[in-house]
Amino acid sequence: MSARPQETRLDLYPSRRGAKPCSIERQDPVVHSAHRQGAPLPPQQICDYERNGFLILEQLFDARELELLQEEAAKLRAASGQIDATLAVAEPGDSSLRSVFHVHEISPLLRRIAHDARLVDLAEYILGDRVYVHQSRLNYKPGLSGKEFYWHSDFETWHVEDGMPRMRALSVSISLVENTALNGPLMLIPGSHRRYLSCVGETPEEHFRQSLRKQEYGVPDPEALTAFADDGGITAATGPAGTVALFDCNTMHGSNGNITPYPRSNLFIVYNSVSNTVEAPFGPTEPRPEFLAERSDFEHVKAISGPIRSV
Amino acid sequence: MSARPQETRLDLYPSRRGAKPCSIERQDPVVHSAHRQGAPLPPQQICDYERNGFLILEQLFDARELELLQEEAAKLRAASGQIDATLAVAEPGDSSLRSVFHVHEISPLLRRIAHDARLVDLAEYILGDRVYVHQSRLNYKPGLSGKEFYWHSDFETWHVEDGMPRMRALSVSISLVENTALNGPLMLIPGSHRRYLSCVGETPEEHFRQSLRKQEYGVPDPEALTAFADDGGITAATGPAGTVALFDCNTMHGSNGNITPYPRSNLFIVYNSVSNTVEAPFGPTEPRPEFLAERSDFEHVKAISGPIRSV
Repeated sequence: MSARPQETRLDLYPSRRGAKPCSIERQDPVVHSAHRQGAPLPPQQICDYERNGFLILEQLFDARELELLQEEAAKLRAASGQIDATLAVAEPGDSSLRSVFHVHEISPLLRRIAHDARLVDLAEYILGDRVYVHQSRLNYKPGLSGKEFYWHSDFETWHVEDGMPRMRALSVSISLVENTALNGPLMLIPGSHRRYLSCVGETPEEHFRQSLRKQEYGVPDPEALTAFADDGGITAATGPAGTVALFDCNTMHGSNGNITPYPRSNLFIVYNSVSNTVEAPFGPTEPRPEFLAERSDFEHVKAISGPIRSV
Repeated sequence: MSARPQETRLDLYPSRRGAKPCSIERQDPVVHSAHRQGAPLPPQQICDYERNGFLILEQLFDARELELLQEEAAKLRAASGQIDATLAVAEPGDSSLRSVFHVHEISPLLRRIAHDARLVDLAEYILGDRVYVHQSRLNYKPGLSGKEFYWHSDFETWHVEDGMPRMRALSVSISLVENTALNGPLMLIPGSHRRYLSCVGETPEEHFRQSLRKQEYGVPDPEALTAFADDGGITAATGPAGTVALFDCNTMHGSNGNITPYPRSNLFIVYNSVSNTVEAPFGPTEPRPEFLAERSDFEHVKAISGPIRSV
């Protein structure tokens, strides 16, 4: 750990500093565009996103596009042995594949999806700005033995470990298989995005090597989490393959393990506003590698319209 | 391991002997009473039990009875430090309470429930015989960190490790809290009770010390399990507190972990036919202790009618 000049910066969202957890109010808008006219979503859905911190959309992509995406995910999974080992993360306790990162750089098809106007228009509207890809990954939750992802706010990690200053980013999750309530679907707590939970404990160096498998720092305290769930309930992003979940960077989410024989896999793309690019981390550790948090190429993505047929 | 004279016994359900898993047909009836007249269940529910291997019943107990049961479970949980340590089993990886066994001997109220005519009549009808309590337990799946129970047939363990000769036993699970699809409910595979999966691997001595926390022997092979689920689907025993799941001793079941803040607790009572009392184990290990498998008191339970108001 080295002393950083940046530690005199204003930190709107301090975390992992004290011995006690605390909860502070969100300092940023949820929907950053003020005008509803010309929005890529009907007003009711914009209100839902603003209130709940997420939106579940079906049939954004057509059957052929979904098929291409599924084939590509299977191909990357089969070839994961050939992928740079740092990009392929295993399940805790065994060697089965959990996630492949930076997929928009590995795969032309996934890059095309990340540039797709249907997603980019939504992200630009909600974030009120041009956007770039902060992170992308394929998550494979194997059947029979898939482990849980514990509750977390992505922003807490992105702020402390990556140096993302403000809440002006969102995630898109596209399910590659049917997500039922029983195969460990993404669960979100409506309304949790409105408060920021400052977590206890310091971050060890190279925390990401462990945290991508099983997170132990930056985890919310049980009382605050229970209060969030008591207030807002828990919504599971269930639906057929192709269901898209769009969620705010500070929405508390997680997923249970999966003993059903049916794997659960998803493509995740994180868009960040080009006015909110990462700086030095707000925590004391070295920045995480670029495959987890883009640090050099902040060129905004140029939306590509029309159906994806091949790349 | 000692050579046993019993190894010359006919073993209708061999398991943990070979290097290859195999699936054999069930050799016993599911509903052992032939007559439908005077049954404690309507004919359609008897057919459902026979076909699926389980039945979910709501409102078998009234609100006051449920309250008594919940209070008693909380009391036992709070006093688990005072309970004989062998009866209280912790979660894998930490010390939080997972199960308390032999509860019908520890608690007069739970003994009264085990003798309740509503349960005993059902068990006697389905098993076509007088019944005794083979095992009882309270399961506490804590919120936020509850671990999974992997898929298993109870009978496989009861046969190999306890010496239960035939499939003529059933479990009753009474939920003490609301079970949703997301808090790790009991999941059952309809129709799986019609075949017996012979598992691979030998059983280590005192396997139960580990297996009650996390089972590693007597687990079904992934291919057979997937085929079962593809054929029959997966049913979650969801419902309000007080929901009763009645299931055959050979029905494949399990439950996912639980990261929701809501604990999942259940009372389990296993009834066995008095014509099916345990003998020497069909596997090579010593019998498990009596708190896991009654070995001396096979006196049939005498049904007590009327609402439970106190004991």
